[in-house]
Amino acid sequence: MKGYAMLGLGRTGWIEKGMPKCGPLDAIVKPIAVSPCTSDVHTVWEGAIGDRHDMILGHEAVGEVVEVGSLVTSFKPGDRVIVPAITPDWGSLEAQNGFSVHSGGMLAGWKFSNFKDGVFGEYFHVNEADANLALLPDSVDPAAAVMLSDMVPTGFHGVELAKVEFGESVAVIGIGPVGLMAVAGAALHGASHLYAVGSRHNCIEAAKQYGATDIINYREGDIVEQIMEKTHGQGVDKVIVAGGTVDTIMQAVEVVKPGGIIGNVNYFGEGDYIRIPRIAWGCGMGHKTIAGGLMPGGRLRMEKLVSLMETGRLDTSKLLTHRFKGFEHIEEALMLMKDKPRDLIKPVVVI
Amino acid sequence: MKGYAMLGLGRTGWIEKGMPKCGPLDAIVKPIAVSPCTSDVHTVWEGAIGDRHDMILGHEAVGEVVEVGSLVTSFKPGDRVIVPAITPDWGSLEAQNGFSVHSGGMLAGWKFSNFKDGVFGEYFHVNEADANLALLPDSVDPAAAVMLSDMVPTGFHGVELAKVEFGESVAVIGIGPVGLMAVAGAALHGASHLYAVGSRHNCIEAAKQYGATDIINYREGDIVEQIMEKTHGQGVDKVIVAGGTVDTIMQAVEVVKPGGIIGNVNYFGEGDYIRIPRIAWGCGMGHKTIAGGLMPGGRLRMEKLVSLMETGRLDTSKLLTHRFKGFEHIEEALMLMKDKPRDLIKPVVVI
Amino acid sequence: MKGYAMLGLGRTGWIEKGMPKCGPLDAIVKPIAVSPCTSDVHTVWEGAIGDRHDMILGHEAVGEVVEVGSLVTSFKPGDRVIVPAITPDWGSLEAQNGFSVHSGGMLAGWKFSNFKDGVFGEYFHVNEADANLALLPDSVDPAAAVMLSDMVPTGFHGVELAKVEFGESVAVIGIGPVGLMAVAGAALHGASHLYAVGSRHNCIEAAKQYGATDIINYREGDIVEQIMEKTHGQGVDKVIVAGGTVDTIMQAVEVVKPGGIIGNVNYFGEGDYIRIPRIAWGCGMGHKTIAGGLMPGGRLRMEKLVSLMETGRLDTSKLLTHRFKGFEHIEEALMLMKDKPRDLIKPVVVI
Amino acid sequence: MKGYAMLGLGRTGWIEKGMPKCGPLDAIVKPIAVSPCTSDVHTVWEGAIGDRHDMILGHEAVGEVVEVGSLVTSFKPGDRVIVPAITPDWGSLEAQNGFSVHSGGMLAGWKFSNFKDGVFGEYFHVNEADANLALLPDSVDPAAAVMLSDMVPTGFHGVELAKVEFGESVAVIGIGPVGLMAVAGAALHGASHLYAVGSRHNCIEAAKQYGATDIINYREGDIVEQIMEKTHGQGVDKVIVAGGTVDTIMQAVEVVKPGGIIGNVNYFGEGDYIRIPRIAWGCGMGHKTIAGGLMPGGRLRMEKLVSLMETGRLDTSKLLTHRFKGFEHIEEALMLMKDKPRDLIKPVVVI
Repeated sequence: MKGYAMLGLGRTGWIEKGMPKCGPLDAIVKPIAVSPCTSDVHTVWEGAIGDRHDMILGHEAVGEVVEVGSLVTSFKPGDRVIVPAITPDWGSLEAQNGFSVHSGGMLAGWKFSNFKDGVFGEYFHVNEADANLALLPDSVDPAAAVMLSDMVPTGFHGVELAKVEFGESVAVIGIGPVGLMAVAGAALHGASHLYAVGSRHNCIEAAKQYGATDIINYREGDIVEQIMEKTHGQGVDKVIVAGGTVDTIMQAVEVVKPGGIIGNVNYFGEGDYIRIPRIAWGCGMGHKTIAGGLMPGGRLRMEKLVSLMETGRLDTSKLLTHRFKGFEHIEEALMLMKDKPRDLIKPVVVI
Repeated sequence: MKGYAMLGLGRTGWIEKGMPKCGPLDAIVKPIAVSPCTSDVHTVWEGAIGDRHDMILGHEAVGEVVEVGSLVTSFKPGDRVIVPAITPDWGSLEAQNGFSVHSGGMLAGWKFSNFKDGVFGEYFHVNEADANLALLPDSVDPAAAVMLSDMVPTGFHGVELAKVEFGESVAVIGIGPVGLMAVAGAALHGASHLYAVGSRHNCIEAAKQYGATDIINYREGDIVEQIMEKTHGQGVDKVIVAGGTVDTIMQAVEVVKPGGIIGNVNYFGEGDYIRIPRIAWGCGMGHKTIAGGLMPGGRLRMEKLVSLMETGRLDTSKLLTHRFKGFEHIEEALMLMKDKPRDLIKPVVVI
Repeated sequence: MKGYAMLGLGRTGWIEKGMPKCGPLDAIVKPIAVSPCTSDVHTVWEGAIGDRHDMILGHEAVGEVVEVGSLVTSFKPGDRVIVPAITPDWGSLEAQNGFSVHSGGMLAGWKFSNFKDGVFGEYFHVNEADANLALLPDSVDPAAAVMLSDMVPTGFHGVELAKVEFGESVAVIGIGPVGLMAVAGAALHGASHLYAVGSRHNCIEAAKQYGATDIINYREGDIVEQIMEKTHGQGVDKVIVAGGTVDTIMQAVEVVKPGGIIGNVNYFGEGDYIRIPRIAWGCGMGHKTIAGGLMPGGRLRMEKLVSLMETGRLDTSKLLTHRFKGFEHIEEALMLMKDKPRDLIKPVVVI
Repeated sequence: MKGYAMLGLGRTGWIEKGMPKCGPLDAIVKPIAVSPCTSDVHTVWEGAIGDRHDMILGHEAVGEVVEVGSLVTSFKPGDRVIVPAITPDWGSLEAQNGFSVHSGGMLAGWKFSNFKDGVFGEYFHVNEADANLALLPDSVDPAAAVMLSDMVPTGFHGVELAKVEFGESVAVIGIGPVGLMAVAGAALHGASHLYAVGSRHNCIEAAKQYGATDIINYREGDIVEQIMEKTHGQGVDKVIVAGGTVDTIMQAVEVVKPGGIIGNVNYFGEGDYIRIPRIAWGCGMGHKTIAGGLMPGGRLRMEKLVSLMETGRLDTSKLLTHRFKGFEHIEEALMLMKDKPRDLIKPVVVI
């Protein structure tokens, strides 16, 4: 079969590979719609997970089941399914401890285009199919549903980590597609004043539609100063970090109130350390909690999130600035993600 | 001064009383807008809190500060303020334990028209003013803001008790004004499928606007059967009880999934016992948690909730089916609440 | 193979059966030590789970692995293992939702001597072996370790449900073996004043050793009155119900403070309803949360609990009043559990 | 009156001052027993809170009430009371938000020897007496009870921040008096394997008595390596930081498992930044939560903690290596704390 792969550090291309094998608990799925992710860019061009050779890329997909293992009971060939980027081993000790995303080791619930081939192939393999796939309702557009693989659960996880509650003020730093879903999620979880930090026109417009009440443009001044001014020196109850660099956490600590929480869902690809400013952190005693984690995946998560689309609470289509039709456009979509033209939020390829 | 009072069990009328006294931590407030509550009806005509004589009624108000005590620092005469129905003693052990509403004894954070005169007087007394009042923003209509005294925080507390999370299915039993705010709150806290149980046309229409996805009309069949059918026999993740009788909890236990929570904010005025069906409760082992509590009040709560109105997340005006102008209409408004005509959701009196 | 079985309602006896089959994820284990449980008594003589024919009883065991399925990686024949009473399906939606004990339906994580043969056979079957077994450390006595199957995790779960915190006062109602473990667990989780409700001499002595500060003997007066008197009318912060009848919850509601939690781990075998006294429950608004649930099982749980024995925090041996040697004594041990002589806490059979 | 004061940076001495004034909510207390704290040393010799002139030092005391304000109802002259180091303003927004310790600003619940004179005077002032004092039970030794002002609640808060649960492995970094109380608290909250990091003989012996199962001596090798070796490369579930420098957090992040929590109660007095190692933190996605906070104070906290002493769960006397008799020994005790001789854990001065 054919797939679009990382050939080595900094190199991508189409390759031929054998079909994936289906174990007793697994499924083989062919993609219906896929989307490239900034993580794919990190993987290939920044070496974020080290070198890989001829590994098919991609971890965002909806697809159609073509084969299931002998122990699979909930799915059958022909089912249209949502595929989460994170597909844990549910019996692992980490999953039993509430952190399925780290099943088998830190971040090891992330398997597609990390430990095995990803979803940019004619077919791909899904482990523990009963526990990791979810049916795609007929009423939901497959292209919009691809955002459930990673963008929605990651952005929403920022809201969960930050424990946003009714009437809280929230800053979301970074309003790419994940940050926009953090904005949408914060609004959907009771935030009142919602400060969205970004600069690109498209993203700013989308942020407002998703519920941002104030835009903080970092090109117009220091974001800490801007947020402190808008909050009359009080800062915000919660911060969600969905972009930036290792230094973004510093800004988050500065603007969050004592008793507040910083929920990070940004992948820090560079730098040896993330720094916490000692004084702003209350010399260790300010109750400014710093949490960060990879999105939880799995079937239940997908079912819950898609139910928000079914009931009209969440509309992911505003993220989809670039739509392609045909498997062969995966390369073009990925290059868009790499080059990030100013009108891009997220591309999707319908197959 | 004049006030509309409970004269004794089953009797109300206008009375003359001396002005309330302002202690060092207190404030005296004159009402700008008030609303009667079903609790006032329970108090007078059902003897819910026992007998009272010449006690001014009412606990929902926004007002203007006319006097503050010597230790009050945050408010001054002339300030327009939101007054919560619950005004705790914040230094009490119960408040330190996270349950300010029970400061000084179970439910004893409720003081207006319970332990002292309520807000249906020309003036009323507020304890611990710095901790219990909140400024009314200019952008918020005082009539709509009266709903912050009790309807919003009570309905939203149902959501908090039930711990509604992203993509959960929720049943709200009872869609009077509190239930409608529970619907709004559940939608604002991430619920997807939202089953609103009620029968009155006005309330059903409002429930849909506030986010209900399905209406369960108890006049059209057993609500347990209807909900189980709509959920394909699975039941719902969470239930909020905002109406009904002691037997409503039975229905809630039947429809909630194992691992689910029932959040009750309904005042049960009659019956010796609330009953839990043994089998449906998993013989004690089904992890169907039953929680119930009076709304948290105080300043921070009011500030957070009004910020939801300021930012356009919450519109309480749909509750206000009957508006009166003039202090003298308090009686008429209360009688509406007692008689509950079918087009009533909530009356408000602007003074 | 041979097993001690429920022949039908009210009848038990030794039977011959074929060896259990080992699926790809499973293990076959032969018991090293087992213990009968009050639940076995409920099953046979009270019909708690309905009729069963020739079903081998027992769900408390440590054993030796004799066979593992092809997909099992953590265990091999010869391994000595702790077997939890509850062996969930870890990929199920309920497990993903944090309630593995209800995987596949309410209470359906309980499989031994419920949906399949139990541990009182020469061999027994364990589903999802990697996720449900735990190695027995050499330093831990197998007889004492049998208490980890059910008594310890059930009693400790009462502490978890009640969320016992530093310096809280706690009442434990019922001090059979589960209640004693609730006493031990509450003391080990920070309780200060610990009121143990019971009457049997052996159990009272054990309760004191496990950390009870006060014994409430229900033969010496109403337990509500006794607890209220000892707490100067304040009641207790938390209640753990580990015995009694459907009416015990009434007493728990009476003695718990507003803001408190009742954690039930008692199986209510009779009665249509559990009743909550309306007034004592604050008419629905007293924040007296009622939680109840079956013990979480699985491998991680067993590993964590056995680590408390390894480090000397927990000594289960005080429960073991009657020790037998030899498979054939299972019947005698079960009959002890049925007849509950006054000197019994818990019997164990080492094989 | 006389008091032992900070005269200026690096200088201390006895001074004469006027009696403190008692406001309507306040109390004046004379000390029965006091103890100097490392924070006093930081204040005077490291300028931790900036310069102060003629400010009486000390924030750990039990005392006798000599005067109460007109609004105080729970205490009267002659009452023997425990005085917490942290005495919040309970009506503040921060307290309503659950973080009373930050009432009026980050860390501003700490008033003694910070914003006002401390407890090393013949008399001292307590704000909101009803909410901040607790009766000292007759059965508790005043010298031992002084440890409730700061050492116990701070150490135990580390356990609370880290959310230690049954059977978890915990590392406590730093075993001075606060760290020792973190060890005791972790053992009292269900930890199994408890790795105590320190080097002083006295402290190691006390740590073992308080429940440490393993001692990690940083003089004998890198603590990260030692802990990883002892945990077979798995790390620990939770870390409590009760000593060290800004670099200690780095070590904590290295040894904590994904999904773990670091609870910091150490005051970081130097350095611009606390650093989080990027890779060990899962590039921002490892769910290794970093929490840190000043101890909660107030009356309820003191009542709960002293109940642990009353019931024999906690024995603070092992901390008291040096006992003095007489007000005039405060200076000597403080100098001990400054010089930290190797046989010191904590000095106490009974007056």
